[in-house]
Amino acid sequence: MSDFSKGAAWIRGQIVPISEATISVTDWAVTHSDVTYDVVPVWNGAFFRRDAYLARFEASMSALRMDVGMDRDAIVRALDGMVARSGLRRAYVAMVAARGTPLIPGSRDPRDCANHFYAWCVPYIHVVRPEQAEAGVAVHLSKTLQRIPPASVDPRVKNYHWGDFTAGLFEAKDARFETVLLPDGAGNVTEGPGFNVFALKDGRVATPREGALHGITRDTVIRMARDMGYEVEERALPVTELLDADEVFLSTSGGGVVPVVRIDDRHFSNGAAGPVALALRSRYFELLDDPAYRSDIDYPDTD
Amino acid sequence: MSDFSKGAAWIRGQIVPISEATISVTDWAVTHSDVTYDVVPVWNGAFFRRDAYLARFEASMSALRMDVGMDRDAIVRALDGMVARSGLRRAYVAMVAARGTPLIPGSRDPRDCANHFYAWCVPYIHVVRPEQAEAGVAVHLSKTLQRIPPASVDPRVKNYHWGDFTAGLFEAKDARFETVLLPDGAGNVTEGPGFNVFALKDGRVATPREGALHGITRDTVIRMARDMGYEVEERALPVTELLDADEVFLSTSGGGVVPVVRIDDRHFSNGAAGPVALALRSRYFELLDDPAYRSDIDYPDTD
Repeated sequence: MSDFSKGAAWIRGQIVPISEATISVTDWAVTHSDVTYDVVPVWNGAFFRRDAYLARFEASMSALRMDVGMDRDAIVRALDGMVARSGLRRAYVAMVAARGTPLIPGSRDPRDCANHFYAWCVPYIHVVRPEQAEAGVAVHLSKTLQRIPPASVDPRVKNYHWGDFTAGLFEAKDARFETVLLPDGAGNVTEGPGFNVFALKDGRVATPREGALHGITRDTVIRMARDMGYEVEERALPVTELLDADEVFLSTSGGGVVPVVRIDDRHFSNGAAGPVALALRSRYFELLDDPAYRSDIDYPDTD
Repeated sequence: MSDFSKGAAWIRGQIVPISEATISVTDWAVTHSDVTYDVVPVWNGAFFRRDAYLARFEASMSALRMDVGMDRDAIVRALDGMVARSGLRRAYVAMVAARGTPLIPGSRDPRDCANHFYAWCVPYIHVVRPEQAEAGVAVHLSKTLQRIPPASVDPRVKNYHWGDFTAGLFEAKDARFETVLLPDGAGNVTEGPGFNVFALKDGRVATPREGALHGITRDTVIRMARDMGYEVEERALPVTELLDADEVFLSTSGGGVVPVVRIDDRHFSNGAAGPVALALRSRYFELLDDPAYRSDIDYPDTD
């Protein structure tokens, strides 16, 4: 009996335990980070906003001119079968499109590569540990690093180019911060490793439009905030304005809404999680269980 | 009998055929492109400038705060044994340091990861096809893309963040150019996918200093050019100056010196490979066989 307790993968048409999911060291997914991916949460036995994640994944593949030879139904079947086999009721589910290797040995032409799809799931990952998220997190804003700019790599095409984030995480962790935010080259904040950022000031909410992934949870937060009566602007968010906010919070598919209590030396909402952030956080977890946004997974009866 | 004709790998302490060299889809080498590597050429049965490549690889690992638990002797033994087992006399030899996966499941802290080393070799790769390289290549200079800037990812730490290069290669290949050069955000040329660039004007040679890898072949070219009496400057190289050059050429560990006959609509040296570039190219292939720069590989007698 294979051990699926740590997760499962769908790769080369087979569902295997996560420990057996590997790709070639010569795949351009590795050697050129030539890959796009998306991550859809599974919560209490159902995908949340599955079609929104799939639509973005398809747009990313199209932007990178990848064709994995699978339509949406085929991808859904792969994801559903994989999660069902894993038995996981709360999962982090990654779908990946990889450039592959050239069909013509030695070719340096990306058009010659055999693109392929794989997916994997593991128990649900919180980008910020839940106990920290409830209390609000302390975040470092890098003074030395800048987010990879859109003129180099389009951040709206979800990608694994995390060198800037990783360097920022070292800075943050060394200084005992939970995570990091990166600015662009023009003094605006962009995003962090796995999350978008929001600032609330005088009842108005702002979040960066350029230089950051347009997260599905970011979109959910924008909708929730508008439903709660807040005006939400997607625009450049200067670091100075961020630090002057009444509340700052993060959005991520790995844990929802996370209040920020501190950015470096600047404390927000008297060092406690902000009330608007907490209200959005609660509402997000309600939505996770709202049938309108859920696609049930067909787990085996024996499970 | 295993088939090593397509190459070999050293991974997890074992030498295996290249087709069996895989890493986990959850390794941060994949999911965060959190990896550094180097490539040392093997030519006619010996490594060329092996210690220069190893010194850079060690500097890269140090910059990324990776510890793979192997000193230089151990890495040399791994590379030597692997190439010897492959039987390849001319090879592209990649050595890789990967972040690995967190020892604490779900951790987002790069300090928690189990770094590891692997290596692989395949028959020698020419970044530009040799028949093209001899005649001189036509290169596209992107007007839409910029090289990932050093403030985001340090290009001197050899890395797999190739999204900008891949997008540029699509531009180039679609327009029937052999390869692509990327500018920075300030109007200077940086580098291309796998090579540095040089401009010769009025007997003086210039090559970018910032925003590009400091290639070992770039270093070899600088030394060769100085030995041939040319003044060589490492400095910002404006695109306008590049296009005004008498000769332009590329340097790469995958093929040495490659003359450029055209950048988009601009033709150099009357559309033929430039004489200085060709002289440097010849001299480079002489050096490849110079015992002063070679570390012989201990192939089995049966080979």
